Amino acid sequence: MDEFSLIERLSRGLPGNATVVAGAGDDCAVLDVGVPGHFLLFKTDAVVEGIHFTKDTPAEKVGRKALARCLSDVAAMAGTPTHAVVTIGLPGGFDPEHVERVYSGLNEMAARYGVAVVGGETTSNPERLFISVALLGTVPRDKAVFRSGAKPGDALFVTGELGGSIMGKHLDFEPRLAEAQWLAGNFAVHAMIDLSDGLAGDLRHILKRSGVGAELVSANIPISRAAKLRSRMHTNAKPPLLAALTDGEDFELLLAVSRKDAVPLRDAWKKKFPNLKLTCIGVITAEPGLRIRDQRGIRELEVHGYVHFA
Amino acid sequence: MDEFSLIERLSRGLPGNATVVAGAGDDCAVLDVGVPGHFLLFKTDAVVEGIHFTKDTPAEKVGRKALARCLSDVAAMAGTPTHAVVTIGLPGGFDPEHVERVYSGLNEMAARYGVAVVGGETTSNPERLFISVALLGTVPRDKAVFRSGAKPGDALFVTGELGGSIMGKHLDFEPRLAEAQWLAGNFAVHAMIDLSDGLAGDLRHILKRSGVGAELVSANIPISRAAKLRSRMHTNAKPPLLAALTDGEDFELLLAVSRKDAVPLRDAWKKKFPNLKLTCIGVITAEPGLRIRDQRGIRELEVHGYVHFA
Repeated sequence: MDEFSLIERLSRGLPGNATVVAGAGDDCAVLDVGVPGHFLLFKTDAVVEGIHFTKDTPAEKVGRKALARCLSDVAAMAGTPTHAVVTIGLPGGFDPEHVERVYSGLNEMAARYGVAVVGGETTSNPERLFISVALLGTVPRDKAVFRSGAKPGDALFVTGELGGSIMGKHLDFEPRLAEAQWLAGNFAVHAMIDLSDGLAGDLRHILKRSGVGAELVSANIPISRAAKLRSRMHTNAKPPLLAALTDGEDFELLLAVSRKDAVPLRDAWKKKFPNLKLTCIGVITAEPGLRIRDQRGIRELEVHGYVHFA
Repeated sequence: MDEFSLIERLSRGLPGNATVVAGAGDDCAVLDVGVPGHFLLFKTDAVVEGIHFTKDTPAEKVGRKALARCLSDVAAMAGTPTHAVVTIGLPGGFDPEHVERVYSGLNEMAARYGVAVVGGETTSNPERLFISVALLGTVPRDKAVFRSGAKPGDALFVTGELGGSIMGKHLDFEPRLAEAQWLAGNFAVHAMIDLSDGLAGDLRHILKRSGVGAELVSANIPISRAAKLRSRMHTNAKPPLLAALTDGEDFELLLAVSRKDAVPLRDAWKKKFPNLKLTCIGVITAEPGLRIRDQRGIRELEVHGYVHFA
């Protein structure tokens, strides 16, 4: 059973209440707790030794990543993060200084984005370090961007370059908070997601929630230098395009915007964020499914993003 | 290094922001996010296989406990729980049905208290099941009860009976939500905490945060039947009074109320909650330290509550 099938089973019949605008199934839960003009965002995520980082990963980067993953989810809703709590499972014979450095990396990231770290739980997890972060945020009611709003004809954009994040970016990525807030503040962003499972997998989440399909233009997919290098260095590494389509942990934004906004968006973006690419990689279609167009024509894209437990 | 020393080190220099009324160090963080008349409560806690439950613990009870621990913390602030997110670390070769039953126990508990489960993260934790829950709640601004308000002369009360929770109650306890809201709604509750580390240990948290001491009356400590039975069954078990003072996971409420409220509170409680004991176990003193009075006189209480990692 892969992660998505399990999550689907577990997501059935979750108890709700009248304040839930969107529960499990988007980047964050969206809650109406009575803050005038705003929704609350709520998200949890975890990093585990041997899976999301190694014993040799610098401790500060572990803490940084634990929080940054959640920050990226708040970005995907066009929100502003506010408060975090941290659960840390400590292996037997842990070094208190190592744990302090984990916190120091996490705290530095929190401070940079104005996030208050307001509580934590420490417990034992004898074999490996386990860090779970829960994050709150806010978003103006009329600016929250869900996965479910993509419409046929929308242009699909992606920030940055994709693939090969295992070469370092998975620890050092910057959550696209300012970019997402600017996008939702200035353009009709119909749907957005952060790329954690890989472009193909995460795009499928948008397609499923929106009840649409998409067509990607192969030549337009922005491939990272890391994905190209890795492909050249390792004979059994993925070809660069496949890496850009399926590698996890890019933590870039994928968004669908009204077709009429596409050109004005690209022009305004270049002025506002000259150091970060924004690329139109395809369109949303009424026909379901995910297709890719290259010099040989158009075909169904069979590859999936990174599937946990697979 | 014990858990409290580590937490103290980690709690230094946590980033804050203007919306934090109380951060790490109370039962929940207390946040002012602009909900008219209310504060938000935010808490995380975890249960780990082999530590908080065993491989043989029924899965439903594991999920129930994971949420109930957080519910008990919201109770200790006199709050109402509203939304939870869940991170679950799954061991290798986990049984999906077992995981579904964990969720089913958690969901049932959530539904009973009106809590919406709005998101979750599943990841791997190869050697053992690890469940971290983050919980939101609300509390009227003038009713939030902190650990820090105990005053010399206050009467100390405890709900229920203490000790021996390992015999079963640690899985089956009912968080004292209705009781705590009624207490804060009708009496001047100066300080409150839920008993997770044991009476002596948790009382010391109140004393430290409030800058006071306390004197307990040995004969008044309500000892559970489980603690008495356990002491009789196992030759090396703690004597019942010691168990009541130091066993963890009672999840009862310990509170300090104005001395003038003590008698009216006891009388009103008996009518409102006839099936749950409320016992006056001592007084808050200006003199620091924790003392206990028995037939031999008064002495410093040296025993501590359950100290994790010790």
